[in-house]
Amino acid sequence: MDGDAPVIAPELQVSRWFNTTEPITLPSLRGRVVLLHAFQMLCPACVSHGLPQAQRVHRLFPREQVAVVGLHTVFEHHAAMGPDALAAFIHEYRWPFPIGVDLPAPQGGVPTTMGQLALRGTPSLVLLDREGAVRMHHFGAVDDLALGAVIGQLLAEPA
Amino acid sequence: MDGDAPVIAPELQVSRWFNTTEPITLPSLRGRVVLLHAFQMLCPACVSHGLPQAQRVHRLFPREQVAVVGLHTVFEHHAAMGPDALAAFIHEYRWPFPIGVDLPAPQGGVPTTMGQLALRGTPSLVLLDREGAVRMHHFGAVDDLALGAVIGQLLAEPA
Amino acid sequence: MDGDAPVIAPELQVSRWFNTTEPITLPSLRGRVVLLHAFQMLCPACVSHGLPQAQRVHRLFPREQVAVVGLHTVFEHHAAMGPDALAAFIHEYRWPFPIGVDLPAPQGGVPTTMGQLALRGTPSLVLLDREGAVRMHHFGAVDDLALGAVIGQLLAEPA
Amino acid sequence: MDGDAPVIAPELQVSRWFNTTEPITLPSLRGRVVLLHAFQMLCPACVSHGLPQAQRVHRLFPREQVAVVGLHTVFEHHAAMGPDALAAFIHEYRWPFPIGVDLPAPQGGVPTTMGQLALRGTPSLVLLDREGAVRMHHFGAVDDLALGAVIGQLLAEPA
Repeated sequence: MDGDAPVIAPELQVSRWFNTTEPITLPSLRGRVVLLHAFQMLCPACVSHGLPQAQRVHRLFPREQVAVVGLHTVFEHHAAMGPDALAAFIHEYRWPFPIGVDLPAPQGGVPTTMGQLALRGTPSLVLLDREGAVRMHHFGAVDDLALGAVIGQLLAEPA
Repeated sequence: MDGDAPVIAPELQVSRWFNTTEPITLPSLRGRVVLLHAFQMLCPACVSHGLPQAQRVHRLFPREQVAVVGLHTVFEHHAAMGPDALAAFIHEYRWPFPIGVDLPAPQGGVPTTMGQLALRGTPSLVLLDREGAVRMHHFGAVDDLALGAVIGQLLAEPA
Repeated sequence: MDGDAPVIAPELQVSRWFNTTEPITLPSLRGRVVLLHAFQMLCPACVSHGLPQAQRVHRLFPREQVAVVGLHTVFEHHAAMGPDALAAFIHEYRWPFPIGVDLPAPQGGVPTTMGQLALRGTPSLVLLDREGAVRMHHFGAVDDLALGAVIGQLLAEPA
Repeated sequence: MDGDAPVIAPELQVSRWFNTTEPITLPSLRGRVVLLHAFQMLCPACVSHGLPQAQRVHRLFPREQVAVVGLHTVFEHHAAMGPDALAAFIHEYRWPFPIGVDLPAPQGGVPTTMGQLALRGTPSLVLLDREGAVRMHHFGAVDDLALGAVIGQLLAEPA
């Protein structure tokens, strides 16, 4: 967590959802700590580290305390990572948390939410506090102990 | 290695090759021990175990002694695992050994070489001796020590 | 963290200290979160899991926020795990945090601090809040994410 | 395996055996491939890598084909690694293969068998072929694939 004044995260721009019957909006998650995990299905560090870590977070904390949301932020190999390929990937790996497809930008390249959150690549994780403010923003691997400590600190804040 | 009389492996039926300038034929590998690794790019155990193990074999043994060949045996989620998606997967993971796309069967389902080799699923590995005979045939994970021992025994046989 | 009213941890009873020039008392650590890691040098799970985890905690958090203290709670194989053997063990593994030898009980068996803390075996970890109260008490392995979350919550409490 | 002419290994000089009812002599193991694993109980790489690997070899291969023998080659911290401490270590870790205490040298320092085998430190492994000749001699970690390959090659040689 850095010293900047936290800003409320921009709304997720998602073209298709998986593992949820209703589209997810950030305001609907107010009151909970939110872990947004941005990944690409063909990104090796996402598959070996980021997604399994998001799954551990999803399993460890009560759902009403911590919400885990995956965001498929495709910025390369678009043809290989379309929504149907993602559906097969989610099915094979049995990722249990909601995953949204980040809305492609009109000109291609970095998709919409990824751009608005200023993510630098995948895997990235963004932690929101109970009020929806961005409190951690990380590109690359974070170890579990450090991630757990930040989640614990955010959980200790009043809703 | 079982007690059956070894049979010469049927020729690979490949519709497209990656990581090689020339199509690979089994007769061209005579004199070497051959590790065929059959995988699907969206098969979790292939990505976490089988392909990294094939890569370790590729790196450990001299090329003129042991040849590693990947075989993309797609039998499900065909639309998500076409040759272009495979190209992106190979690029992102930097698999260094030759990989062939197993020729799809006319009616879909199990592809041609996979059927001829009677593979039961992915990951599977098939070891050929210096004469091209099938000496090990395994579906699922094999640990490195056991795989190394069989390769070592095959290497000890005269060419 | 359970629902019982937290109690102030009893003082450490230590016959010899390593990795510190001064004996450590719990009151001297007030204001910090304290991780007490109880181990035996010949306990496999302590060596493979507990001590490396204590080391990660020691490295991750600022010293003035989190204090890690090892406690050698020998309750079996006393002759093999005396202070000189412990000194060799600490030297070889380069454990970087202070470690105290739990004062042997007059009749042997469970040593003094281990008894007062009601620890059931090794590895055990005990977390104290900034006021010295016991807030977590665990026998066996805890994963890093869960441990990090509790430390984070304790860090969020006012000193 | 190097290109030197292999030499018959010198006999083990052992002051005390564990996990065997009879002292083990190298001539009694003729006809089998032998893995000698030299370790110290307080050597971190022995505990995390070498001994578990020796255990995997012990479990994988039939006993009448491959014999695993541990050798406790204490050359430092002698007081902390005496035979009674070793007994506790073997008990706690449940090492399943025979382990001998290398006979201490009269003047201390490197023990007898370790000196005769010219081992440079721990962990070290020495592989003997079915005739008792030294075929591999390695200080430090060897990965399972490479070790398996050498064992496989030695197994392929006639008894």
